[in-house]
Amino acid sequence: MTPEEFREAAHTAVDWVADYLATVEQYPVLSQVTPGEIRARLPEAPPIKGEPFEDILRDLNEIVMPGITHWQSPNFYSFFPANASGPAIIGDLVSAGLGVQGMLWATSPAATELETHVLDWLVDLLALPTSFKSSGRGGGVIQDTASSASLVALVAARESATGFVTNEDGVQGRMTAYASTEAHSSVEKAVGIAGMGRNNLRHVATDEALTMSAEALDRAITEDREAGRVPCFVAATVGTTSSTAFDSVRAVGEVCERHGVWLHVDAALAGSAAVCPEFRWMHDGLEYASSYCFNPHKWLLTNFDCDCFFVADRETLLRSLTIVPEYLRNAASDSGDVIDYRDWQVPLGRRFRALKLWFVLRSYGVEGLQAHIRKGVGLAQEFTRWVEADDRFELAAPTTLNLVCFRHVGDDAFNVSLLNAINASGRAYLNQTKINDRVALRMAIGGTYTERHHVEETWDLIRERVAAIAQGKGEG
Amino acid sequence: MTPEEFREAAHTAVDWVADYLATVEQYPVLSQVTPGEIRARLPEAPPIKGEPFEDILRDLNEIVMPGITHWQSPNFYSFFPANASGPAIIGDLVSAGLGVQGMLWATSPAATELETHVLDWLVDLLALPTSFKSSGRGGGVIQDTASSASLVALVAARESATGFVTNEDGVQGRMTAYASTEAHSSVEKAVGIAGMGRNNLRHVATDEALTMSAEALDRAITEDREAGRVPCFVAATVGTTSSTAFDSVRAVGEVCERHGVWLHVDAALAGSAAVCPEFRWMHDGLEYASSYCFNPHKWLLTNFDCDCFFVADRETLLRSLTIVPEYLRNAASDSGDVIDYRDWQVPLGRRFRALKLWFVLRSYGVEGLQAHIRKGVGLAQEFTRWVEADDRFELAAPTTLNLVCFRHVGDDAFNVSLLNAINASGRAYLNQTKINDRVALRMAIGGTYTERHHVEETWDLIRERVAAIAQGKGEG
Repeated sequence: MTPEEFREAAHTAVDWVADYLATVEQYPVLSQVTPGEIRARLPEAPPIKGEPFEDILRDLNEIVMPGITHWQSPNFYSFFPANASGPAIIGDLVSAGLGVQGMLWATSPAATELETHVLDWLVDLLALPTSFKSSGRGGGVIQDTASSASLVALVAARESATGFVTNEDGVQGRMTAYASTEAHSSVEKAVGIAGMGRNNLRHVATDEALTMSAEALDRAITEDREAGRVPCFVAATVGTTSSTAFDSVRAVGEVCERHGVWLHVDAALAGSAAVCPEFRWMHDGLEYASSYCFNPHKWLLTNFDCDCFFVADRETLLRSLTIVPEYLRNAASDSGDVIDYRDWQVPLGRRFRALKLWFVLRSYGVEGLQAHIRKGVGLAQEFTRWVEADDRFELAAPTTLNLVCFRHVGDDAFNVSLLNAINASGRAYLNQTKINDRVALRMAIGGTYTERHHVEETWDLIRERVAAIAQGKGEG
Repeated sequence: MTPEEFREAAHTAVDWVADYLATVEQYPVLSQVTPGEIRARLPEAPPIKGEPFEDILRDLNEIVMPGITHWQSPNFYSFFPANASGPAIIGDLVSAGLGVQGMLWATSPAATELETHVLDWLVDLLALPTSFKSSGRGGGVIQDTASSASLVALVAARESATGFVTNEDGVQGRMTAYASTEAHSSVEKAVGIAGMGRNNLRHVATDEALTMSAEALDRAITEDREAGRVPCFVAATVGTTSSTAFDSVRAVGEVCERHGVWLHVDAALAGSAAVCPEFRWMHDGLEYASSYCFNPHKWLLTNFDCDCFFVADRETLLRSLTIVPEYLRNAASDSGDVIDYRDWQVPLGRRFRALKLWFVLRSYGVEGLQAHIRKGVGLAQEFTRWVEADDRFELAAPTTLNLVCFRHVGDDAFNVSLLNAINASGRAYLNQTKINDRVALRMAIGGTYTERHHVEETWDLIRERVAAIAQGKGEG
């Protein structure tokens, strides 16, 4: 495909995307296909001769689209808002067109320097501790996801606790990690990958607010240390996945400091809210953290993947992950004057992801981002009042930001039926969790295109389905 | 940004990308900026109010572009060809526009099923063992890079060797891994991350062709086992990064089978060549492999990131990486009828990357991809003959595919000066390696837009610079 052929096909694709975004709410939010249905419509083998773009576009519409769950629909309330936005899509397009690798500074200095710069901007924008800035001993980097951020933080913590001996000789004896029972599954996954053993992750008890008990953490670390184990990593969660509960970073951080244990703070979804001063309470005590991450791809209008990961001491991270083979050597790296982001992550190669984040920050400006967050929180608060006002429903957890966890007063089976009925309608998509061992529905508000009337219509839908189930019309 | 505002800005961006690709060879290939130069031109803080798209585009041109190293330039010969292409860029654009998560089948069935299908296509297209197909016990998945593929393969191997006890209880005693002295640094990085200790990676000796010695491997495994260690992972390289040397998969595989050790085959760059029957010799013996990967983003016209990773027994991989929290539960996953790719990788979230690969396979067709590979190999062979015919130069390794490793007959310092002079000219970008402890220049041919005349002009440039250095004009 020549640049001119690309130009023509890409203009068609832009119109396709713009049309899609303009009409996305007309699609069933959750794809209604059955397993294998998409594959059955694809040919057994790729074509021998190249095919024209219009044939591919036709199959995109006819074969692929029925199998899409529409994360950009204003009626998508499952998991997290998964904010994409025009500026981010365009940033990704330019990045794909440039096709550069940012693994070393030299392989595209702008990719590295813009990333460092924009991540420093974010430290100010969210009022994070200045220790995370590149001007001091810390710094930020874009990871694909919070899972990968947890893994590299854990590895750095493991090495920090053993004086980098583990990296050389492997895990010796028992090394322990800590997170609340409400922490994201990625922490346990990381502990497994890092060779520490999932059984050595302590699931620290939470209090009634589903917040990690600092006392229980303190006890667990003390007991492990007395038993000759090596506590090395605590993950605090600022906004749990299940219910947006907040560990007290200060209380947990004080315990970590006392014991000399690495504190990683995962604010994957909630962190974006700190662009607004009124939500910065969640980060109180963050100066205790050795590492921190939040995901603009969750709630800050930036396309996946974009997890912003910060460390207070970049040398520990680098020493844990650096290997310099001859074919990566170059004058700039040898000089020590530049950042080579390959040493900050698991993969070697990396796309120019800072571009989309830069496009977003500039297109929306600080005020635009604040307005976006406040809208999501405001709609969630409003939805919460509707739930509270209806006797058939109850909140399953307090609405702290943009996530409403609620349930029908019926039993778990009723709530699962209700959820399935809502999702089968195609008119909205929520998901489920368990809070205090009972099923709850999760309604995460904050989509790029979600307006008040969408939330209102979804509330109508939910109540309709309750009535239908009560009348024995089941999930139809 | 509304869909209509997006439409307008994105059309402008498409023209920007098309113009860029049409003129990319006019830019200095290697960015000539100094450390900090880009950052110094960026403002201290993001804007308070949103800015119009034309302002961002202006800064893209004025601030970012001087800091770009042009991987898509036809005169880029460093590292690997880093093939982007029109269809892949458009596939990524559509993927960004859809903004879906493919972490679970249910979160976009088409994202999962198209990926499974296209990776099955690739098994046939490259004539890989059918054990890698999803129809049997194996299957393929897109990872970001070969580094991540190595890591998940290593974790699965570690668990396979210990009956999944390591995942639960952590690394006990010494577990050993094996790769040749020429293997990619990502293997050592993975061994460190996985908690096995880098010292427990055996760097197996190579023969004169820089190929892993199966005898040395056999001895190393035997000795480790006799000493009570647990050998669990061998990485064979099909096309080393340094010089495109080929381990004999068959010879190494027979050793692995005899010892019951997991064989991972890394064909990151070279693997793409197997679309042509005449290059499939490199995969001889691949039926011994438990896992395999190659990167269409290196030489098969597909934008980064796209590493295709295959396993012969998906259950081992899944059991090593699966954790199912309540908030990810859904009817389709519970049924066991679907693939949830989140269990095949480190991150939880994932983009719809199969789309670009599908666009590429359909746009070029099998014959188009073969023609692309053959062109790169043909040009490399031709360049090799020029080197051989010039007394001042010598080959540093045989040209097996598209990479020419050569040097001036002068010493290492001369060759480094020569490389710096070439790269400082902005007219081409090569990189360096060491082969048998001597500096060599790497010229990787196979860019999307590289034609014969570009290679010819680069050869002229190289000889010019030799003359200039000889005349004491240095790197000017």
